[in-house]
Amino acid sequence: MIESWRSSKALILAAAVALGSVGLATQANAESKIVDAKIMKAKGAYGLFNTYKVQPSFYAMSMVDRSNAAAAVQALVEKHKGKVMVQAYLTRGFESDSDFLLRLHAYEPDKAQAFLVDFKATIIGRHSEVKETLIGVTKGLNHTTKKKAPDLLASLKAGKYEGGTPKYAFMIPIKKNAAWWNLSEKEKLDKMIEHTMPTLAFLSKVKRKLYHSTGLDDMDFITFFETNDLVAFNNLNIELFKVSENLFNVRYGKPIVMGTIASVSDVFNALAK
Amino acid sequence: MIESWRSSKALILAAAVALGSVGLATQANAESKIVDAKIMKAKGAYGLFNTYKVQPSFYAMSMVDRSNAAAAVQALVEKHKGKVMVQAYLTRGFESDSDFLLRLHAYEPDKAQAFLVDFKATIIGRHSEVKETLIGVTKGLNHTTKKKAPDLLASLKAGKYEGGTPKYAFMIPIKKNAAWWNLSEKEKLDKMIEHTMPTLAFLSKVKRKLYHSTGLDDMDFITFFETNDLVAFNNLNIELFKVSENLFNVRYGKPIVMGTIASVSDVFNALAK
Amino acid sequence: MIESWRSSKALILAAAVALGSVGLATQANAESKIVDAKIMKAKGAYGLFNTYKVQPSFYAMSMVDRSNAAAAVQALVEKHKGKVMVQAYLTRGFESDSDFLLRLHAYEPDKAQAFLVDFKATIIGRHSEVKETLIGVTKGLNHTTKKKAPDLLASLKAGKYEGGTPKYAFMIPIKKNAAWWNLSEKEKLDKMIEHTMPTLAFLSKVKRKLYHSTGLDDMDFITFFETNDLVAFNNLNIELFKVSENLFNVRYGKPIVMGTIASVSDVFNALAK
Amino acid sequence: MIESWRSSKALILAAAVALGSVGLATQANAESKIVDAKIMKAKGAYGLFNTYKVQPSFYAMSMVDRSNAAAAVQALVEKHKGKVMVQAYLTRGFESDSDFLLRLHAYEPDKAQAFLVDFKATIIGRHSEVKETLIGVTKGLNHTTKKKAPDLLASLKAGKYEGGTPKYAFMIPIKKNAAWWNLSEKEKLDKMIEHTMPTLAFLSKVKRKLYHSTGLDDMDFITFFETNDLVAFNNLNIELFKVSENLFNVRYGKPIVMGTIASVSDVFNALAK
Amino acid sequence: MIESWRSSKALILAAAVALGSVGLATQANAESKIVDAKIMKAKGAYGLFNTYKVQPSFYAMSMVDRSNAAAAVQALVEKHKGKVMVQAYLTRGFESDSDFLLRLHAYEPDKAQAFLVDFKATIIGRHSEVKETLIGVTKGLNHTTKKKAPDLLASLKAGKYEGGTPKYAFMIPIKKNAAWWNLSEKEKLDKMIEHTMPTLAFLSKVKRKLYHSTGLDDMDFITFFETNDLVAFNNLNIELFKVSENLFNVRYGKPIVMGTIASVSDVFNALAK
Repeated sequence: MIESWRSSKALILAAAVALGSVGLATQANAESKIVDAKIMKAKGAYGLFNTYKVQPSFYAMSMVDRSNAAAAVQALVEKHKGKVMVQAYLTRGFESDSDFLLRLHAYEPDKAQAFLVDFKATIIGRHSEVKETLIGVTKGLNHTTKKKAPDLLASLKAGKYEGGTPKYAFMIPIKKNAAWWNLSEKEKLDKMIEHTMPTLAFLSKVKRKLYHSTGLDDMDFITFFETNDLVAFNNLNIELFKVSENLFNVRYGKPIVMGTIASVSDVFNALAK
Repeated sequence: MIESWRSSKALILAAAVALGSVGLATQANAESKIVDAKIMKAKGAYGLFNTYKVQPSFYAMSMVDRSNAAAAVQALVEKHKGKVMVQAYLTRGFESDSDFLLRLHAYEPDKAQAFLVDFKATIIGRHSEVKETLIGVTKGLNHTTKKKAPDLLASLKAGKYEGGTPKYAFMIPIKKNAAWWNLSEKEKLDKMIEHTMPTLAFLSKVKRKLYHSTGLDDMDFITFFETNDLVAFNNLNIELFKVSENLFNVRYGKPIVMGTIASVSDVFNALAK
Repeated sequence: MIESWRSSKALILAAAVALGSVGLATQANAESKIVDAKIMKAKGAYGLFNTYKVQPSFYAMSMVDRSNAAAAVQALVEKHKGKVMVQAYLTRGFESDSDFLLRLHAYEPDKAQAFLVDFKATIIGRHSEVKETLIGVTKGLNHTTKKKAPDLLASLKAGKYEGGTPKYAFMIPIKKNAAWWNLSEKEKLDKMIEHTMPTLAFLSKVKRKLYHSTGLDDMDFITFFETNDLVAFNNLNIELFKVSENLFNVRYGKPIVMGTIASVSDVFNALAK
Repeated sequence: MIESWRSSKALILAAAVALGSVGLATQANAESKIVDAKIMKAKGAYGLFNTYKVQPSFYAMSMVDRSNAAAAVQALVEKHKGKVMVQAYLTRGFESDSDFLLRLHAYEPDKAQAFLVDFKATIIGRHSEVKETLIGVTKGLNHTTKKKAPDLLASLKAGKYEGGTPKYAFMIPIKKNAAWWNLSEKEKLDKMIEHTMPTLAFLSKVKRKLYHSTGLDDMDFITFFETNDLVAFNNLNIELFKVSENLFNVRYGKPIVMGTIASVSDVFNALAK
Repeated sequence: MIESWRSSKALILAAAVALGSVGLATQANAESKIVDAKIMKAKGAYGLFNTYKVQPSFYAMSMVDRSNAAAAVQALVEKHKGKVMVQAYLTRGFESDSDFLLRLHAYEPDKAQAFLVDFKATIIGRHSEVKETLIGVTKGLNHTTKKKAPDLLASLKAGKYEGGTPKYAFMIPIKKNAAWWNLSEKEKLDKMIEHTMPTLAFLSKVKRKLYHSTGLDDMDFITFFETNDLVAFNNLNIELFKVSENLFNVRYGKPIVMGTIASVSDVFNALAK
């Protein structure tokens, strides 16, 4: 459908129409919100984290074309709603390796792949290079379970975020060494209790979500944080560094990806400027 | 034959004709299936794994030209059938470093090289950059042999995959350290038994194939998995991480390459979109 | 506003006017200096350090256009004054990975991000690639506090820089290992006292500023130095290498970024040559 | 002589004439073979190993121009004969980082450099990027000498390659750690005897040549193998991994470069396709 | 002054005139030699080592333009004489990451930076990418001093290079680990004596110069060698690897940069071919 890099406005609008009936998006939104709220709490859901860097060629296009290109992404997100939930973060200025982060949730990875293949075929996708791709699945906690550590689990569940609409997000991948995995279950549980205790105090200031990725990519866990209080977040990380479980991390971040939280529209409009 | 990057439809069709008589492909297919089934079980067969990233220049071509370019790959695969077996996997969306993976089997590496040199001369080959190349050979198991561990080998052979046509494939290269290779044969056998035991439970859900590559490339083994059940695959990998043999791995993945399984046509048509 | 890479003088002047009323800059400067002096001593302020490499495409423009592009950066700095304090360093000749370093201070990272997104939309920003991005926050010292080490803190505060207007700046990121963070507070205090003692002698020759970045990026600290005496600076670093706290550093520099200190105008005019 | 990237056939032919009188090459060949056979057995000869990746721009040229470009390399090899011996290997399909390997032998490195500077000025040289450069010198064995290990040396010399004209070549650079070099001469000799013993069985199937490069590049040794039997080669490497000397290797390969052995003409004609 | 990439001969000649009165260069040369000889023996002088790779775009220019571009570098060197001493080495053919090395000496780094900024504005500078930048300062030896090791120092000073005009140069950066710096002064002295003893025999065959760079860049030392005898140089490095001080090196080379020694004119004329 897209014949060349030098797309015209007409082509993009045609693409937007083809991708999904934009006029009906509002109705879809209402349904999608229900679906989205559910998948964010579901076990067995897949999270995909892809960072991208916009290439200089994008800025050889006119402002109008760039603006239309941003709109086409939004249209694509609408088209895939119900199958894939898409969130965007602006990393330009905070990261050298990326300008934005796409965070996808789906019950099947091939559904997310279908969105990402379509995204690559949009104007912005064509002019962006994917830099980091991570995939994880939501599961129950490995060690801090109802059976093994009921009190701690209760404390974790009781902790409520009270920091207001968060402005910043952080994606921190974690990889543990072979010595960690060779610890006994009891040893790992003890270390996870030691790990979790100092984090309780931060539950009110920092939101956290965990994905398991051993074997699916080169990480073991993907941790995702949202917060308004960066000094608290800095202190939380220092606490996590101080526990003995940290002696078994071979990768904590590298990269830590920091972005501002915004709607898909706002992120791509900022990049289209 | 291909004179420039800006190829026309006529040229590509000519190329397709030259590469192999497409009309006769059906008959060749029947024979090839027999050959293919055989090589997949043979010892002394070579597996080559090459990942590629499609370059932006490809998308400066028209949709029609891109579609013809995808067809030319299929024609090339037909032409080399009997000498090389070619399988393709779509990695776009799952990997930052590649868009597709080619998996080749041949009884002689130079036959596979001949295909890959020809592939590089196709339109898609010209516009793709090869990113990872691995080569291994199929051999009997080093340690879990009939003589040394008859029961375990019997269990391994009895395990049948029952997970339906698999949707996802994973290529995981493995490199062991010098300490591993300096263990006695008895020590290595014990560790491989410890390694294999927890994997038996997953035989029904995950298919696996092993290639030996010490000295042929910078890895020691290439492991290839196919599955429909990613949570099972995640759990299988966790089990493999927990055994003491894992303490001797210096590289497990890096990269783990994840792709969806599809025909050569479907993979290249998806990329041509 | 900027429609293409091949900008004309008219466009840039229009941009400069739009970005901020250059004629009123002097008045703004007076106020800004007060704000700037304050933020440099404040706790809870964010420091962002971004290095950039000018791309060859920039030098395909005319000298006049390049000169105007340099002026546009200065205009952008004026526009954001009060919200973001911007300092520039010329690294060309000293660093392979960058030509200049931007050092930003703001009370909120998203304010600094807003400047950096705008900077990326200037002609020089479009033709530069960001290479390294670090972010840290100013806090009180972790260990050398009034309570824990009153004498040492007093010595630190008594030390005055007497080396004249410094010509050179160095940014050195630091990352400590898990063993460091797992030391007791007493052990870390002892090591920081050992670390600080030999540095006192250099306070008169080298200025230093510290940022905390654990969790905000992949470093733990960003240290920033300004000096006229590079032999003294070399000796100071040797002293820092000799103390046992250095045994816990996994990254000290990598990169150490060296630049000459100059006004934003002078840095970009030098690069526009 | 070559004025631009878009060279014409006339220019290339002129270049070929200028580089060496092609008509007289046959006579030169006879003399060269004597020289070449001698340098391959000489001590104090330098081996240079350079891998190259052909850039996409090369394939924007016409097939005729590409073919002429291949011929120009052959002419250049003739011109330098007697001063530099040049061998080529096709790595495309086996390596991601290169398409071909040039292996040079000369009694003085600046003679080899003169060829390589001229090669860079050919059409193919202009359109290729050099990826890996290694240099080593032939010397007597460090430890397995007539005096220290006469029997082993005799066995080594008695071993004859009987595998037929070899099809595949492997370049494997080796770097040992400081602990290795700090072993006593006796300890190193013992380890080299342990290392050599299991290799004797493979002398009939794998040819080997050794270059010393400590201080000349970042490796300690460059090992070069030629064989027809890749399973034997895989087994030989496994044997080399099992001995205690391998515990001191910090780099074994990285990269292992695999190529098919062919004449300079055949290698460049394959790449020109 | 240089308005675009497609410079004409007229422009370059104008540039050469503007950069320095070429006709007066002979007189300047005589004075410069005195200055140069002095700075090469001075303490407190700065050495800057920058490697560059010529980009393909350079060879899209005509031979005449390339030749003029080489002349412009020579003119620039003349212009800065007295302030900066510039030496060039041809690394093409020996290094994959560079084509030439510039070695600068100045009493103030900003003087060297001024040259390098001007160099980047020449035609060759515009078409070259800087790859490695190192800076060090000449100081007295840290350990082998008159007081601590008078005999060894005397031996070092008595050793005279007798190898004729050297043809090859090597730059080898060194970085030591934290354990090294934490040794006592006595321990370090002992190790440096052990290090120096076996090097005495090579003083007649290999010239050496040392720069200190701790804190100025990511290295601790830059060692620079010139020689005609590469086997001796290989043996010298093996001796340096055998001493216990080598157990504390975390980086020795990486890269070792090898080049042929030639005048600035000859180096750039070779690259302009």
